[in-house]
Amino acid sequence: MTPPANPLAEDRRDFNRLAQRVAGIAEQHLRTLPDGVVDRVMPETLRREVLDTPLPAQGMGADQIINFLRDKILPWPLPTGHARSYGWINSPPAPIGILAETLATTMNTTSDGYDHGGIFLLGCLSRWLRELFEFPLDNSMTLLLSGGSACNLNALTVARHKAATQAGYDIRRDGLQAIDRRMLVYSSQEAHSSIQKCVETLGLGAGSIRAIPTDDQFRARADMLADMIEQDLRAGHLPCAVVALAGSTNTGAIDPLDEFANICEQRDIWLHVDGAYGAPGILDPRYHGQLRPLARADTVTFNPHKWLMTPVDCGALLVKNKSIHREAFSLVPAYLEAGGTDDAPWPYHYSFQLTYADRSLKTWATLARLGRDGLTELVVRFDKLADLLGERLEQSDCFELLAPVSLSVVCFRYRPRDYSGTEDELDELQSALSAQITRDGEAHMPTSEINGKRCLRACFMHYENTEQDIDHLLTLLETYGDAMSS
Amino acid sequence: MTPPANPLAEDRRDFNRLAQRVAGIAEQHLRTLPDGVVDRVMPETLRREVLDTPLPAQGMGADQIINFLRDKILPWPLPTGHARSYGWINSPPAPIGILAETLATTMNTTSDGYDHGGIFLLGCLSRWLRELFEFPLDNSMTLLLSGGSACNLNALTVARHKAATQAGYDIRRDGLQAIDRRMLVYSSQEAHSSIQKCVETLGLGAGSIRAIPTDDQFRARADMLADMIEQDLRAGHLPCAVVALAGSTNTGAIDPLDEFANICEQRDIWLHVDGAYGAPGILDPRYHGQLRPLARADTVTFNPHKWLMTPVDCGALLVKNKSIHREAFSLVPAYLEAGGTDDAPWPYHYSFQLTYADRSLKTWATLARLGRDGLTELVVRFDKLADLLGERLEQSDCFELLAPVSLSVVCFRYRPRDYSGTEDELDELQSALSAQITRDGEAHMPTSEINGKRCLRACFMHYENTEQDIDHLLTLLETYGDAMSS
Repeated sequence: MTPPANPLAEDRRDFNRLAQRVAGIAEQHLRTLPDGVVDRVMPETLRREVLDTPLPAQGMGADQIINFLRDKILPWPLPTGHARSYGWINSPPAPIGILAETLATTMNTTSDGYDHGGIFLLGCLSRWLRELFEFPLDNSMTLLLSGGSACNLNALTVARHKAATQAGYDIRRDGLQAIDRRMLVYSSQEAHSSIQKCVETLGLGAGSIRAIPTDDQFRARADMLADMIEQDLRAGHLPCAVVALAGSTNTGAIDPLDEFANICEQRDIWLHVDGAYGAPGILDPRYHGQLRPLARADTVTFNPHKWLMTPVDCGALLVKNKSIHREAFSLVPAYLEAGGTDDAPWPYHYSFQLTYADRSLKTWATLARLGRDGLTELVVRFDKLADLLGERLEQSDCFELLAPVSLSVVCFRYRPRDYSGTEDELDELQSALSAQITRDGEAHMPTSEINGKRCLRACFMHYENTEQDIDHLLTLLETYGDAMSS
Repeated sequence: MTPPANPLAEDRRDFNRLAQRVAGIAEQHLRTLPDGVVDRVMPETLRREVLDTPLPAQGMGADQIINFLRDKILPWPLPTGHARSYGWINSPPAPIGILAETLATTMNTTSDGYDHGGIFLLGCLSRWLRELFEFPLDNSMTLLLSGGSACNLNALTVARHKAATQAGYDIRRDGLQAIDRRMLVYSSQEAHSSIQKCVETLGLGAGSIRAIPTDDQFRARADMLADMIEQDLRAGHLPCAVVALAGSTNTGAIDPLDEFANICEQRDIWLHVDGAYGAPGILDPRYHGQLRPLARADTVTFNPHKWLMTPVDCGALLVKNKSIHREAFSLVPAYLEAGGTDDAPWPYHYSFQLTYADRSLKTWATLARLGRDGLTELVVRFDKLADLLGERLEQSDCFELLAPVSLSVVCFRYRPRDYSGTEDELDELQSALSAQITRDGEAHMPTSEINGKRCLRACFMHYENTEQDIDHLLTLLETYGDAMSS
């Protein structure tokens, strides 16, 4: 058996040249992105060509593959890399995050465990994140998972475990079918759809979600929560978690976390905060008071691929008590060594997954590059931009805000001066405006819905966003709006 | 508000220089890896230094961050990148996969949906994988998730949904607590721990797993499976899935898939095949017959980050009937458009996750680079190397095989000539041998256990593995073994 002429071995020897090429292609993409169309629609013929590409019998050349990706895939990203993408709450990738990810992929390490470099970097990053969010450091930890859904699933798995255990059930062995008290999850009626999907995955059923009504600022009402729990307890049910929102997806609303924490502490119910988007708002002095009680939660979801500019994907879960987490997941009994140390635990014991990507390098690098001051500057700037947009919309006589501005989210609609049409027509106008903006390539701003009214929704999330973007956006909206309604 | 001197904006302008640097660092890592120690233990002082690095107030420089990762993290990967890492079944990263991942991170797209380039590339790759595994193409699909655990969880979620629905329950709404027939999962007693973790996450409880006894070749016994199911049905229980192994983690054993498929088809029970490691064995004519029935499964887990050389992480799930999958997960009713097309469906509707990484570029690039022939060559070569090692161990008078060689896995132990010690001492000798090999940096081969006997376990999984590795390994084992037992 002679050493085979393996294409991968060839590439390893030719790696320097290939990597230099790819570096240049990535650079060009990032350099030219701001000048291009914001939301790029892949042409139908190209879709067909990509879909129909046959699996080659003999491998393609490395350069040919790089060219294929450069010409046919890279030009058609999501709009979220562009500074004038105001719709979806994913940040653009920090350039240093892209580069750190290249090194992570080269290392090819996993996040299950073992004493490799990534595990210790994760240990460092884990502390940084808990410090940033003023989360207690003792016996706590941070998990890096794929995003909000994965973090919420992990948190609710442990909440379910704790509630069942306290009620005397061995849920890991016997499952939910052996539990006769109905397990319930409480969350704002504004909660992200991932909560429902997680609750369904856990076998609790969507019907086990108690939707907490919100006040006129879209915050879940603590008084209602307390009543609902009391009523359910009297009926013999078993509350297993309360999910509070720290920056709802739709309006950026922050639930009354301190009151929620009081309710949960009094009744020993798990408090999970879904701050996938909004938790970093704690760095803005204006929101610090509302978000300081994150420290009282049992678990907090927060996505570095949102406000922290980490390349997709990266969700983080702050875990208050890692002993309970281990009890809920690990197959190694608590009295046996599970590998790792107190400040660099092996994540395998704290989730259902074994091998998964090491996200510590890209996340650590992005945070290190910004530092506490740089991250704070971003958060404060985005919040200010949202306020400014809100003020200018209110000053105008052809817009109305549909929700209070919260964090970096603004929900509003265009309403022509002296409007006399129907609400349905007004809804249609928002959709038409949104579509026109996308079509012309000037920005990307999908519609949303507030109290049954269709709205435009802007969320600032790009490190190059400035006041000029607001000028540009308002001019755009007024010009198209006037043209459409005249 | 003047445009801020943002460090991320600076890096975007300086990206070419930074990326060229990182390319050089990655190249050096890959070039020098084969000459270094296989399993590198990060020194205690460096661990401490990394863990204690403070979160900087002002951001670090981009070059400083790159240097930090280069000097303190990159030198300490897992052993799996090295050709003489025989223990853990993760492949080394294909160089073209590393480069494609850099482009994917630059694009920053997600795998939830929308008509971006990655979704159509995934559509193409999805077909390639189904073709490779001879899986039916009509109404089927492929999901790319983080690994075996995530794929198994996804598959079992749908299996649970289908069984409950057929039995007349609305599990998405009412959950498991409304189902009075005990739901059961059948799997080989050799199944990977992820099956238990998934079953627990789903709320079924580990006690709902029926462990199927294995034969003397470590294959789950179909006759026993049929009996167990019949008995459970008579008791009124509700079987929800059978998990068959296509290449068990420990011995590479392949369960009798055709017989399993017969049993499941007759009773309309979901057949999930966990082929995380072994499914690509179908490309080796010697294993084609055993693995051809993959096509009869409802779902098949197979990890591109194992035999397909894709950088961590990437697990793939082949899905037979995507309509049932959508029914189990989607929040958009079946009669409404859910985005995507038949050959490029939006993955969001087929899993519990929303935003997660786009793994299509790195996986597509690796497969394109190898082509069908290149991938087949790897599979056949690894299987041959395992056979060869097995033969030479049997010819020697100081080794014994503890399981039949299957696919690229060999389980054996060193047993000194005319050995007269105890079994316990023999166990200890294997551990000592494994530790000595690691310590000297010559290879990495952790121990495992077969029928209560500790063994050494070699799995070939590196694109540069050749017969020379076998010579090297045998010399190593004999030298250390003789020294230790004399």
